[in-house]
Amino acid sequence: MPCHEVEIHVFPPLKEETQDDLYSLTRFPDDAVRLRNPHIQEMEQDILYHLALGSGSHDLVEMFSDVRFVCMGGTPKRMEGFANYIMDEIGHKLPAGTTLLDISYHSYRYSMYKVGPVLCFSHGMGIPSVGILLHEVIKLMYHAKCKNPIFFRLGTCGGIGIEGGNLVITESAVDGMMQPYLELPVLGKMQRRPAILDKQLANDLKNLHCDTDPFSVTVGKTMCTYDFYEGQGRLDGAFCDYKEEDKLEFLQKIHDANVVNMEMESLCFAALCQHAGIKAAVICVTLLNRLHGDQVSTPKETLNKWQEYPQMLVARYIKKQIGLPFDIPQREHPQVVKNPKQAHMVRQESACFE
Amino acid sequence: MPCHEVEIHVFPPLKEETQDDLYSLTRFPDDAVRLRNPHIQEMEQDILYHLALGSGSHDLVEMFSDVRFVCMGGTPKRMEGFANYIMDEIGHKLPAGTTLLDISYHSYRYSMYKVGPVLCFSHGMGIPSVGILLHEVIKLMYHAKCKNPIFFRLGTCGGIGIEGGNLVITESAVDGMMQPYLELPVLGKMQRRPAILDKQLANDLKNLHCDTDPFSVTVGKTMCTYDFYEGQGRLDGAFCDYKEEDKLEFLQKIHDANVVNMEMESLCFAALCQHAGIKAAVICVTLLNRLHGDQVSTPKETLNKWQEYPQMLVARYIKKQIGLPFDIPQREHPQVVKNPKQAHMVRQESACFE
Repeated sequence: MPCHEVEIHVFPPLKEETQDDLYSLTRFPDDAVRLRNPHIQEMEQDILYHLALGSGSHDLVEMFSDVRFVCMGGTPKRMEGFANYIMDEIGHKLPAGTTLLDISYHSYRYSMYKVGPVLCFSHGMGIPSVGILLHEVIKLMYHAKCKNPIFFRLGTCGGIGIEGGNLVITESAVDGMMQPYLELPVLGKMQRRPAILDKQLANDLKNLHCDTDPFSVTVGKTMCTYDFYEGQGRLDGAFCDYKEEDKLEFLQKIHDANVVNMEMESLCFAALCQHAGIKAAVICVTLLNRLHGDQVSTPKETLNKWQEYPQMLVARYIKKQIGLPFDIPQREHPQVVKNPKQAHMVRQESACFE
Repeated sequence: MPCHEVEIHVFPPLKEETQDDLYSLTRFPDDAVRLRNPHIQEMEQDILYHLALGSGSHDLVEMFSDVRFVCMGGTPKRMEGFANYIMDEIGHKLPAGTTLLDISYHSYRYSMYKVGPVLCFSHGMGIPSVGILLHEVIKLMYHAKCKNPIFFRLGTCGGIGIEGGNLVITESAVDGMMQPYLELPVLGKMQRRPAILDKQLANDLKNLHCDTDPFSVTVGKTMCTYDFYEGQGRLDGAFCDYKEEDKLEFLQKIHDANVVNMEMESLCFAALCQHAGIKAAVICVTLLNRLHGDQVSTPKETLNKWQEYPQMLVARYIKKQIGLPFDIPQREHPQVVKNPKQAHMVRQESACFE
């Protein structure tokens, strides 16, 4: 069937919603999250399929109503690491003899850890993957009656004119054609949602940078692509029809237009959070400067160190919000350990007797 | 910056490559995979970043040159299950005291299992995730000098007019606007690649259906979307601006245009395999009939059973190709076990003494 037989209709140019409109559409009078979907409240139960949770099967208010911060990143391992890191940073205590559990383990798709007011997710790679997660997390916020949650994406990216190991906070996101919105066909019509992020939050995060930090922080435009290789102008994919000069010319052109990094999720993250009236920020560490190459050759240990930088900034923000001193962690070592050196010795001694 | 400052250029209408053109672009004279990228051979080493493999660090010819079939599916768990299933089906033997290893474990992104001539991957969710994997697997085929590999995607989908628990083999894929190609901005210009699959392979697979199978097999058009909720016209996402009637009208319209299922990877899978001259097929099991609802309410055990159906068809094809009787497995139980009942008893006895 030729494509013209299905009606194609591009939505009218973006209408600016006022902040008041947006707030009343997305919040109840008590600040709890309200959905822009009348169908959900008519459903007997809502299965959050990719999270392995349901509104009929789980007491979502009991489990999640205290959540104030939602933190997302690519891989399960990185986000499990962040969950344990933020636990020490905010001094959250678990009962003796317990450990964090991956709440969404049975979905085999995303991982999910809860540390007091902080909920941590892995979102996989790319717009569709983060999009499915956002739909279900926003619904989770609604079912759990969470009040004004703040969402963060902590990621990695290619820097454009920024060397590896530095932070970029996304001011706004654009797609590979420099369009500042997420395009998605809905019932055969093209829907566009502006990929806007909270300017105040971006600045607040930038202001938490300390002079002693081993990284710089830049607030700028992020190009979000649907592909890692050709979509980001790399020369090292399975296919490449262009020359190095073409690539550099393109990267220079977008750099001149204030694009400072490239990644694969921010457009959707910004657009869906904005549409849900959720304050959100994208903080990525650069793995390389794309003006100088495509392949990441930095040693793994250095990369692992770099991936902690976005976590450091977000931890400071969360600590400040909940009234803790933002520049020091609440614990220097895991809970219940009084003396790490002696704890290490006890572990070694114990192992000798196995 | 307004988007018009970056040059936007839509590629000319699709030019049909002849089969001979395609073959000489994508194969060496000995049938080994050739890349449509002149830069790779000039690189000192090529790091397959998301697979945790490299052409300089690993002997890829030694590891992978015997691969003839590449099978991909969404989750690591399903693909580990498939790897063990295909091992018994083709009677592949491992040395005593060994087990399959996730070769890409250190990437924390995809999983990868090798069973003789069959390579199994999890591809995550959505076009960007499967796209990154395909770039790196096609490069792997090149580095390993694999000859004429065949690629399969084994997935799940929503049926359009087909009840849950049946198979759909994709004839060709369309996007949410019914366009039969993958669109991707490359260096600021819109690139289009036809999402074509091998008709012969689709028919060969369909012909492996047996009268006693608990499922039907349909060959038809697949709509591939960038979102699971609004992108597939669901009423149960975080957002919904349309009514049930609008949804049903849309689903009926695409059904009338021969779309028989919806999923989130086929467009990219078809387009990249076609561009690489790789014979490929997409075989999905329907989890529900979308004309009757959005949420999947079938019990988990039934869903797990259904997810084996695409595996059964692909296993038959592989067995036929390598000269084994296609309708019976080579082993009814795991290798080295002569008598499963006695093996079970031995295991129980042994456990009593722990």
